Amino acid sequence: MIFYLHSFPGLTMTTIEVANTLVQLCREGKNHEAITSLYADGIVSVEASAPEGTSRESTGRDVVMAKGQWWVDNHEIHEANVTGPWPNGDQFIVGFRYDITFKPTGNRFVMEEMGLYTVQDGKIAQEAFFYGM
Amino acid sequence: MIFYLHSFPGLTMTTIEVANTLVQLCREGKNHEAITSLYADGIVSVEASAPEGTSRESTGRDVVMAKGQWWVDNHEIHEANVTGPWPNGDQFIVGFRYDITFKPTGNRFVMEEMGLYTVQDGKIAQEAFFYGM
Repeated sequence: MIFYLHSFPGLTMTTIEVANTLVQLCREGKNHEAITSLYADGIVSVEASAPEGTSRESTGRDVVMAKGQWWVDNHEIHEANVTGPWPNGDQFIVGFRYDITFKPTGNRFVMEEMGLYTVQDGKIAQEAFFYGM
Repeated sequence: MIFYLHSFPGLTMTTIEVANTLVQLCREGKNHEAITSLYADGIVSVEASAPEGTSRESTGRDVVMAKGQWWVDNHEIHEANVTGPWPNGDQFIVGFRYDITFKPTGNRFVMEEMGLYTVQDGKIAQEAFFYGM
């Protein structure tokens, strides 16, 4: 059982509490709830790459939520593994490994990436995804 | 075979070249050579924790080299796994998993950590190690 500290708005979570809660929610497939409860309004999200002419960086919880929703809508997940967290100061790293099919093409592949999260005032203020192309 | 780009001082390595070379050298156990050839003079090294009264941060290639030498002198390595690299912009992440014995106590354990590296002008300007306690 996980103790949902973020259910108590008066409390500020430490970096390790944010990290453990994020990992737990992602393992349960509750990525939407993770963003709602753990992300700062002005969250900055940085991808390792982006289509030509677009930015690797997006800002704002609604934008990040929409990006996540696009991903969920367009991929069939066969298996998901979430590892970590590994903390350092106000940052932590989480590993993601997905066996997925990209619905528009039917192409099945394994995606492995590392997420680097930065916590400010008990909320995730930045996420950056590390992966090869 | 690895193409040692860093053997050509006139060339500036890209982040991904630095990342691949670091992983290759670490896999070969050539950590000393990695520091000599890939690290900036003013390298900043950040640990996730440090003994009370000491800093998590150390600066300078000689200091980082000495820290590495202390580690090598005090641990027997039974197995080493280096994973990655996972790049994002001028940074990349490398995973380390060591099955080791701490010589002074004889205590054997598995150490798992993530290294986050920042590249400037073709050299590693910062390393930060992420791990739980």
